[in-house]
Amino acid sequence: MPVAAAAWLDLDPGHPFSLAALPYCSFSTRQHAAFHRVGVRVGDRVLDLTTAAERLLPGRSALFRDGLLDPFLAEGHGAWADVRAEITAWLSQERFREAVEDLLVPVAGAELRLPFTVADFVDFYASREHVTTLSSILRPDADPLPPSWLHQPVGYHGRAGSVVPSGTAIRRPCGQVRGPGGAPEFGPTTRLDFEAEVGFVVGVETVLAEPVAVSRFAEHVFGVCLVNDWSARDIQAFESAPLGPFGGKSFGTTVSPWILPLAALEHARVRPPSRDTELAEYLTESEDWGLDIRLEVRINKQLASRPPYSAVHWSPAQLLAHLTASGAALRTGDLYASGTVSGPGPGERGSLMELSLNGAEPVALADGSARAWLADGDEVSITATAPGPDGTRISLGEARGQILPAIVETVR
Amino acid sequence: MPVAAAAWLDLDPGHPFSLAALPYCSFSTRQHAAFHRVGVRVGDRVLDLTTAAERLLPGRSALFRDGLLDPFLAEGHGAWADVRAEITAWLSQERFREAVEDLLVPVAGAELRLPFTVADFVDFYASREHVTTLSSILRPDADPLPPSWLHQPVGYHGRAGSVVPSGTAIRRPCGQVRGPGGAPEFGPTTRLDFEAEVGFVVGVETVLAEPVAVSRFAEHVFGVCLVNDWSARDIQAFESAPLGPFGGKSFGTTVSPWILPLAALEHARVRPPSRDTELAEYLTESEDWGLDIRLEVRINKQLASRPPYSAVHWSPAQLLAHLTASGAALRTGDLYASGTVSGPGPGERGSLMELSLNGAEPVALADGSARAWLADGDEVSITATAPGPDGTRISLGEARGQILPAIVETVR
Repeated sequence: MPVAAAAWLDLDPGHPFSLAALPYCSFSTRQHAAFHRVGVRVGDRVLDLTTAAERLLPGRSALFRDGLLDPFLAEGHGAWADVRAEITAWLSQERFREAVEDLLVPVAGAELRLPFTVADFVDFYASREHVTTLSSILRPDADPLPPSWLHQPVGYHGRAGSVVPSGTAIRRPCGQVRGPGGAPEFGPTTRLDFEAEVGFVVGVETVLAEPVAVSRFAEHVFGVCLVNDWSARDIQAFESAPLGPFGGKSFGTTVSPWILPLAALEHARVRPPSRDTELAEYLTESEDWGLDIRLEVRINKQLASRPPYSAVHWSPAQLLAHLTASGAALRTGDLYASGTVSGPGPGERGSLMELSLNGAEPVALADGSARAWLADGDEVSITATAPGPDGTRISLGEARGQILPAIVETVR
Repeated sequence: MPVAAAAWLDLDPGHPFSLAALPYCSFSTRQHAAFHRVGVRVGDRVLDLTTAAERLLPGRSALFRDGLLDPFLAEGHGAWADVRAEITAWLSQERFREAVEDLLVPVAGAELRLPFTVADFVDFYASREHVTTLSSILRPDADPLPPSWLHQPVGYHGRAGSVVPSGTAIRRPCGQVRGPGGAPEFGPTTRLDFEAEVGFVVGVETVLAEPVAVSRFAEHVFGVCLVNDWSARDIQAFESAPLGPFGGKSFGTTVSPWILPLAALEHARVRPPSRDTELAEYLTESEDWGLDIRLEVRINKQLASRPPYSAVHWSPAQLLAHLTASGAALRTGDLYASGTVSGPGPGERGSLMELSLNGAEPVALADGSARAWLADGDEVSITATAPGPDGTRISLGEARGQILPAIVETVR
């Protein structure tokens, strides 16, 4: 039974940021630019949770004092549930109006930043459709799946320091690529791409040699965000043997500013796609952690793709179990992402490389233009919704970025 | 002209931790276990810099107050030089005896921890001998160098959260490996290895899309440490296609507790090995940043190898320029390492995989035992020295770890 918002909030129960969502952010306002606060989205406003907790939840207010989610993430599942219940009470009961109404600011006036300190960033390769489409393009005669792919999630460590919040402009990167004659050339990428992904934010840390069982996923992972893992395909192609992607993926990774807690995704849980391979015990799930998150990718506001996260082969609980299976520790603020989300349909692919078949068939946009790869000035927006209560859909917000032209200069 | 230590210090000018070295650490003592202090090694003692700065350098004492190097690293080259000059004065002039003598504690009584917060960890593959030996073992008929290797440093992001200080025990990891019949099996690695490396600690941060020129290396990098990038070769072999190493290298990375500033390595600078390939401008150096650091690897205190860092093909200035060339930002506390250091001689290889030719020829140790791969209980120690003034050699300390047996249990 969904909780109705208090009358004074004037919030439609079908609003994508209804009380069923309540994602967290870090924000400041123009009037108080230096005062970074933890916020909670409700409708088209942001609740100043840092101040609200001082008034109404003094025992936990230290968790929100520095304006980042880090201490709250570290606190664990009990705190996550309690604080969500408190916020829900404040926003649904008339008696809290006086205490919180002046703490709601219009979202348009909130300056959003990265809501947590990114510790390690891991990106997976969990969508079978993504992998098989890439293989059919790049290695049409080879096995469409890498040797270990059906047996374990394949992933790599990305650059945590390059994670930026939605709205940050992305400079077209330079790098070495294989030139027409085969010799390498240094210059701006000519094959700039997006990758639409779902990211998972770790709250509770572990120590080395303490694997996290699939059944303990929700004890460690706080919530989800949207991720655009910008990729320079030509730089990546030249550099990747044998250690994987590096500079072609480390020039910027955009995340949505809203972290939606797992608690808001109870209605979104689905069984992952059927798997045809017997799995090692540490990857065998007893709960369904597939998620019916529907992504939409827009280029310059025109719909380019609708990738369905529910089609992704490896669940986020399996990704975490595999990430820690060999003994890697978790730190608060670790971010791991699904890798490109692609569905079986042609309009469900999560990257231009797949949509344009490696540039061979440029994607037609509604304005009459077409894209094989991203052009300078292009703005890419990834949004998503998930099922909420009573047939509503809740929003995961937006991960957006605009491409700036390369800077080509001598850097000696 | 080297600076002589004050007479009361009773320090041999040829001591590996003479005033020419002065590496930094973070430490506490048994009596004051909760008081984490920044320390400076001098001889067989550690100077409590946190307290010394309060007494003698009050304008900079905030840099050392929280016991980690992070604020000092961020402060930049001017502060690094000033503080080193101050410490040198305190330890070389009689008049400072009263102010600092009671702040020196025996190194045996200092509990050392990670001296800085590791932001991103990048590991390169910069030794030509290492790469060619691996290729001759794994792909004898193929080109010994990956396609881009001579044109740019090859590297990947590792797990920053798995970096631990010397002395931390390393649990033998479990993972999926290709079984005898080709089917994957999950269990403890049977091919556990070390990799002897040199690491570089970034002090001054940058923003996205601001590449760091080779000429600006010493403005951003504070100093060096020793690194053991423990590797499970069988896990790594199964997982690495196409995104590179993951769980096979994320279960622990040991670093020496001492960060030796670049300023201490002026006598160690040498020209890197000659390169036979024309380089892109951003990789072309005007200064020599090869370093005559001589590593020694011991297994259970028996010498196993003497890898010479001076043989490494790509210099640390080139590694940093390449790391940032596509636009990656630097954060204070970023750590990047050379990759396995191997020299041309058979006794100069920096990993067991090379020393034992992939297990085919176990390495004989002085106690009569032999190692194809590491056994439970084995202790691996990496030490190193570099030229100091007047023919002396200064020490980089030690990166040491002992292998604990795997924990094999159900983790569901």
